[in-house]
Amino acid sequence: MSGREFFTALPVSEALAGFRPGRRTGTERVGRADALGRVPASAVTSRTALPGFTRSTVDGFAVRAADTHGASEALPAYFEVAGSVRMGAPAAVAVGHGTAVAVPTGAALPEGADAVLMVEHTQQTMPGMIEASRPVAVGDGTVRADEDVAADDVLAPAGRPLRAQDLGLLAAAGTGDVVVRAKPRVGIVSTGDEVVPPETEQLLAGQVRDATASALAGLVIDAGGIPCPRGIVPDDAGVLTRTLEKAAQECDVVVVSAGSSVGARDETVAAVEALGEPGVFCHGLAIKPGKPTLLAQAGEVPVIGLPGNPLSALVVFRLVGVPIVRRVGGVTLPPAEPSTTAELARRVASAAGRLDVVQVRVQDGRAVPLFGASALLSLLTTADGYVVIDESATGLDEGQHVTVTLYR
Amino acid sequence: MSGREFFTALPVSEALAGFRPGRRTGTERVGRADALGRVPASAVTSRTALPGFTRSTVDGFAVRAADTHGASEALPAYFEVAGSVRMGAPAAVAVGHGTAVAVPTGAALPEGADAVLMVEHTQQTMPGMIEASRPVAVGDGTVRADEDVAADDVLAPAGRPLRAQDLGLLAAAGTGDVVVRAKPRVGIVSTGDEVVPPETEQLLAGQVRDATASALAGLVIDAGGIPCPRGIVPDDAGVLTRTLEKAAQECDVVVVSAGSSVGARDETVAAVEALGEPGVFCHGLAIKPGKPTLLAQAGEVPVIGLPGNPLSALVVFRLVGVPIVRRVGGVTLPPAEPSTTAELARRVASAAGRLDVVQVRVQDGRAVPLFGASALLSLLTTADGYVVIDESATGLDEGQHVTVTLYR
Repeated sequence: MSGREFFTALPVSEALAGFRPGRRTGTERVGRADALGRVPASAVTSRTALPGFTRSTVDGFAVRAADTHGASEALPAYFEVAGSVRMGAPAAVAVGHGTAVAVPTGAALPEGADAVLMVEHTQQTMPGMIEASRPVAVGDGTVRADEDVAADDVLAPAGRPLRAQDLGLLAAAGTGDVVVRAKPRVGIVSTGDEVVPPETEQLLAGQVRDATASALAGLVIDAGGIPCPRGIVPDDAGVLTRTLEKAAQECDVVVVSAGSSVGARDETVAAVEALGEPGVFCHGLAIKPGKPTLLAQAGEVPVIGLPGNPLSALVVFRLVGVPIVRRVGGVTLPPAEPSTTAELARRVASAAGRLDVVQVRVQDGRAVPLFGASALLSLLTTADGYVVIDESATGLDEGQHVTVTLYR
Repeated sequence: MSGREFFTALPVSEALAGFRPGRRTGTERVGRADALGRVPASAVTSRTALPGFTRSTVDGFAVRAADTHGASEALPAYFEVAGSVRMGAPAAVAVGHGTAVAVPTGAALPEGADAVLMVEHTQQTMPGMIEASRPVAVGDGTVRADEDVAADDVLAPAGRPLRAQDLGLLAAAGTGDVVVRAKPRVGIVSTGDEVVPPETEQLLAGQVRDATASALAGLVIDAGGIPCPRGIVPDDAGVLTRTLEKAAQECDVVVVSAGSSVGARDETVAAVEALGEPGVFCHGLAIKPGKPTLLAQAGEVPVIGLPGNPLSALVVFRLVGVPIVRRVGGVTLPPAEPSTTAELARRVASAAGRLDVVQVRVQDGRAVPLFGASALLSLLTTADGYVVIDESATGLDEGQHVTVTLYR
């Protein structure tokens, strides 16, 4: 079966929805300090309630709310101050009828108290006595023992990368480590007789340094994976098949950037087909740039064949590869990408039935499309972000408001 | 001078604009593979032009454009095929008048050629001959030797964290390492007699585990810094001053979360004031939550005093602390935050002259405000993001369209 026969372009949304290799990484236990961005394998729950005790939220006096009933400036309620609570210690004295205990913000409420009078609403009239000029209701000036978190509450859901505040709540609950998905290992294979290692000091005419592998490594890290560079393979289907087979055995996802020429691309297709069942899912996506993209599976391992030129390869990997890497790594709630709304500075044409990805600079609220041969990687480093023109549109008009997904 | 006297709240924008400690981290050299997110200390330029040779962007035949002048289906131009170019090698044969050389996409143009005829616009009529049915102009089907990058062009600007595509362009230019700013070391000090280490298994009533330090560590990493936990200091101005002095000597930024009670907060102010010149810049920001925030300098080192409760501390650190950490780390072009537009699900009141930060969930295009005591850290872990109500507004109406900055 020749790769050519596959070359009917599939809409990107269909590819993302339909191509769902079952591979998931295993689990591992990491300490809280190393857990930022890691993906809980199952929901993390709290063993105990938090704060765990009824807590004052103001500086003031713990009382029985009923004792303040009807209190006003004109007719204050009087309390005997029975003592005070120290921060970080249980209250040594209880609150009874007509007594108050001084509590600082954050302290535990003494037994018998059910509200806290703010110090601003009290007056010390004589030593050991205060008067309250306002009533309080039960619970005023306090948080309940389980108001922040109840026992068995979810501290962090499965599948959402841990954020800074999640680490805070884990610490509050005394959770020292978390079971997370292992970071997906992403094998990165480059092909093309013209491609030489970035370390190459002097190039011959016709040679280019491998830009794609380094950029893909960055995108893999952004997606929560571990880049596993597998080097550059010459345009030889046999060598390429063996390289891909080994990568599929050792990695969770395999990415191969094809050579630029038609011949090199065909060899990549042949090599991927030789990986066996279930094989090629699609060859050709309805996207520009990036049409000659190939999605396949070696067993459960996704294999992503990218176009030969770096710009196209990176555009497609961002839209298609990153979601695949995240899914393999257990992410079910992916983080949002930064974006902005801008006015398109000039008309951009597009073909219906194809997703167009247009690189733009954003200046003074205007999105200025950047054009150039798709072989120019500098378009991507100059761009602030990109605009997606979806399959139904035949272009975007000058002055139209567009959403720009911003690079960061 | 008592901390109380400083307690006139400064608008957040004025604090960010006016508080500009001169501290910057030193520089270090990192390999390209470790450079994602790192901040170039100066612009990285290219030693050479890229691709470095005139390159074909199509599969076809390199020719002299002038030889195709007037070519059409009816009256094609004829060429003798003088040979072909191999990928990754200089062309072994030159193009002369009336001759063509076969070139794959990405190959170097042979000497004498100035354009490439796409193979689709040619026909092989007899062995060794082709006819072209369309004319091409000089440069068609090619990129110039310096079209991607000219020698001395900027590959990556100073002050913008390196993105995946930047690593790709560095690789293409053969740049193996980059001089970047060292990651800022951020000393994190917790105070409060009620605060105990997160490792504490059993809490006494009144005790809380230190949530703020763990969450701040996450925000510091997000901001490109290295969290340096300095432990929990009891409410003792002398001990706190010595801890802060040591942290200011060893770190690039110092953050201290004050105890919750007024007394503990006053001690933090006293301890920061004791650090010496230039001292306290402001005490009290016009922000809710987070008013009791303190900005100071110990020499050139910024010292940020945060409110005692974790929610307030994290809200303020995100808005004020993160930009300071980035600036110390050399970032001049900070990455955008993800955001979305949503319809406010209910009215939110706010006081004029104060920045209000409202935590929200986003559901079906609606932003649902989350309310609760500012002592509840779970508000932040439940929220999808936050809405900022600026100083000029006295609230936001139900149904109003708001921008939600999304957590990730």
